[in-house]
Amino acid sequence: MSGLENVKWVVASRPEAEVQASNFEMKREPVAPLGPGCMLLKARYFTVNPPARMALVSGGIARRPIPIGATMRGSGLAEVVESRNPDFEPGDLVMGDLGWQRYVISDGVRRRVVNKVQPREGFPASTLLHVLGGSGATAYFGMTEYARPRVGDTLVVSTAAGNVGALVCQLAKMQGCRVVGIAGGARKCGWLVSELGCDAAIDYKSEDVPARLDETCPNGIDIYFDHVGGAILDAALARIAQGARVVLCGGTSQYNNDLDWYGPKNYFNLVYKQAEMTGFYVFNFRDRFEEAHSRLAALIAEGKLQYREDILEGVENLPEALMRLFRGDNFGTQLVHDA
Amino acid sequence: MSGLENVKWVVASRPEAEVQASNFEMKREPVAPLGPGCMLLKARYFTVNPPARMALVSGGIARRPIPIGATMRGSGLAEVVESRNPDFEPGDLVMGDLGWQRYVISDGVRRRVVNKVQPREGFPASTLLHVLGGSGATAYFGMTEYARPRVGDTLVVSTAAGNVGALVCQLAKMQGCRVVGIAGGARKCGWLVSELGCDAAIDYKSEDVPARLDETCPNGIDIYFDHVGGAILDAALARIAQGARVVLCGGTSQYNNDLDWYGPKNYFNLVYKQAEMTGFYVFNFRDRFEEAHSRLAALIAEGKLQYREDILEGVENLPEALMRLFRGDNFGTQLVHDA
Repeated sequence: MSGLENVKWVVASRPEAEVQASNFEMKREPVAPLGPGCMLLKARYFTVNPPARMALVSGGIARRPIPIGATMRGSGLAEVVESRNPDFEPGDLVMGDLGWQRYVISDGVRRRVVNKVQPREGFPASTLLHVLGGSGATAYFGMTEYARPRVGDTLVVSTAAGNVGALVCQLAKMQGCRVVGIAGGARKCGWLVSELGCDAAIDYKSEDVPARLDETCPNGIDIYFDHVGGAILDAALARIAQGARVVLCGGTSQYNNDLDWYGPKNYFNLVYKQAEMTGFYVFNFRDRFEEAHSRLAALIAEGKLQYREDILEGVENLPEALMRLFRGDNFGTQLVHDA
Repeated sequence: MSGLENVKWVVASRPEAEVQASNFEMKREPVAPLGPGCMLLKARYFTVNPPARMALVSGGIARRPIPIGATMRGSGLAEVVESRNPDFEPGDLVMGDLGWQRYVISDGVRRRVVNKVQPREGFPASTLLHVLGGSGATAYFGMTEYARPRVGDTLVVSTAAGNVGALVCQLAKMQGCRVVGIAGGARKCGWLVSELGCDAAIDYKSEDVPARLDETCPNGIDIYFDHVGGAILDAALARIAQGARVVLCGGTSQYNNDLDWYGPKNYFNLVYKQAEMTGFYVFNFRDRFEEAHSRLAALIAEGKLQYREDILEGVENLPEALMRLFRGDNFGTQLVHDA
C-alpha cells in the first residue's frame, strides 16, 4: 500500500503549567513499506487521559518522560489495513498504545498494538475504549471490590460526569446508595441529577464544595470515589462516616503538580473513622474483565445504564482533545475519531 | 477517711510548640467527704500518650480542648479505697480517665472511672495499661485485621520501640515477616535487633530514613505500621510494594501541628501499587479484647513475647512523663506509678 501519508504529533516542549498546543508539533511523513511479519494499522479512535500530563513532564512514577521529538503516547483502537503477519488480517481490530498518529506499523511483537479485540455484539467499537473497556472495568471493580456499597450508603464521586464517574453514579444508584456527584458547570450537574439519577450534584466551579458536602451529606460520606485529589479529597476525608471507603481512582488536580502532590491533611480521619483508603490498577483484574463487561453490557441493553461520548474528528485534534479534558470542557468520554 | 490531701495538675496554659512544664500547674487540696453512692479512688498507674498534646490545644477532632484551670485528662488504673457505692468495695481496681491526680471521687456513674478490672493471673496490674490493655489490642487487631501478614512480607514499623511498636515487631517475626523497626537512638535500635529479633533497625535521629529504607527493604514494603505521620509516612508510601497494607495507628510527629497536619504527598502510590491505607479505633474491637489478651498473655508466659515498662514515680512527675514521650526519651511504655 503505497503513497500513504502519516500524520503524527511529536513532543515539542514540556508543559510548565497547563498543557498547551505549543507542546506538540505535527509532522507529516510517508508511510514506510512493510517489513516481513509487520502490519500496517490505521487509527480509528483515540482516548485521551489526564495522566498524559505526567508522561510529558516527569514520566510519572517510572521517571521516564516521553523524549522531546518522540511521538506522543496515546491509547486507541486501530484497524489492520495491510498485513505481512500470519496472525492478523485486514479488518482485524487492535487496541493499545498507538501513539498520536494516523498510521502505525507494528512488528506484531510489541504488545502495545497487537492486542486483538472485537466489539461486543450490538455495541459500537468505540465502547471498547470506555464502558466496555478499562473505564467500565474501573467503575465495576472499584465498586465491587473497593467501594463495597451497602444499601443506604452515601456515595460521593468527583469528576462525576466523566467516563468512570458517570458509571459509578449509576451503579451506586442501582445498589441503593444516595449519590452526590461533583462536576464542573451547570450543564454537567443538571445531567447528573436529571439523567443519571444523582440525589444531588455539586458544581465545583461555582459552589463551595465543603459547604455543599455538609448540606448534601448530613450523615457523612460512606464512600468517596476520588478522581481529583487536592482540596476536594481533603474536604471529603474531613466528612467521612464511620467505616468509610475512600477509593482512589485519579488525581486530575495534581497531575500538573507532577512529583510534588498535595498531600491530604485529613488522612488521619481514617483512624478516627475506622476507614480505609485504597487504590487499584484495573489491569490486575484483566482475567475478570468479561465479568464486568458482560454485566455492564446487559445493563446498557436493558436501558438501565447510559454512557456519553464526546468525539472530536481527526488526529489533527488530539492536542485540543487533551486540553479540553484539563479544562473540563468535554461532556462525556473524550474521544478522537479518525475516519 | 479524712485528712487526705489530693495532688492534681491543672492546665495552666496551652503549648505553642512543644509541651512544657509551664503548661501545667500543681494544686493541692483536701479530699472532699464522700457523698452517698460515691467512692474514693487512689491512682496507682497512669499512662501518657502523645494525643494529649491535641487535648491541650485544639481538642482534636471533637474541638473541645481541656479548659484552662481544669484538671489535665489522663488514663490510669486506680484502687477503690473507700466506698459508699454497693457495687464497689475497697481493693477493687478500676480503669479509665482519672485525670492527673492522686485521688478521684467517682459517683459510680461516670463511665470513665467505674470500669472495674482485674489483673490477669500471673501478671502485674500495670500490664492492664499496655500489653494486656489497649496497646496490646491495638497491636493484635492491627496485625490480624489490617496488616494481615503473609509469610515473607517485609514489615516496617515506626516508633518500633514503643508500647504498640515493640509488640508489632515481635508478632510480625512470629508470622514469618522480615521486620524493620524505626526508632530514635542507638540504644532502642540495638534492642530492636538483639532482643526483639528485628532484621534491621533505623535510627531516625541519626540516619537518613529514606536511604536506609532503600537499603533494608530492597523489594519494597508490604506492611507499614505508622505511628508518626509526616516525612516518614511519606518515605514509606514511596516504597510500598504491590498490594501493600499501610496501617495508621498514630501520628506523633503531627500532634504538634494540631489541625494543620502534613498530608502525605505520596498517597497516590496506593493506586500505582494497588495498596490500602487503613485506620481503626481499637475500642470498636472491645468485644474481642479477650481473644487478643489471652493470646498475648500465653505468648508472654511461654517467653515468646516481651514488653518493657519505663516507670516514673509519683503523680508529681506526670508532666515530665509526657515531655519525655515527646522527646522520645522513654524506653518502653511510659508509666507513672503512685505509691
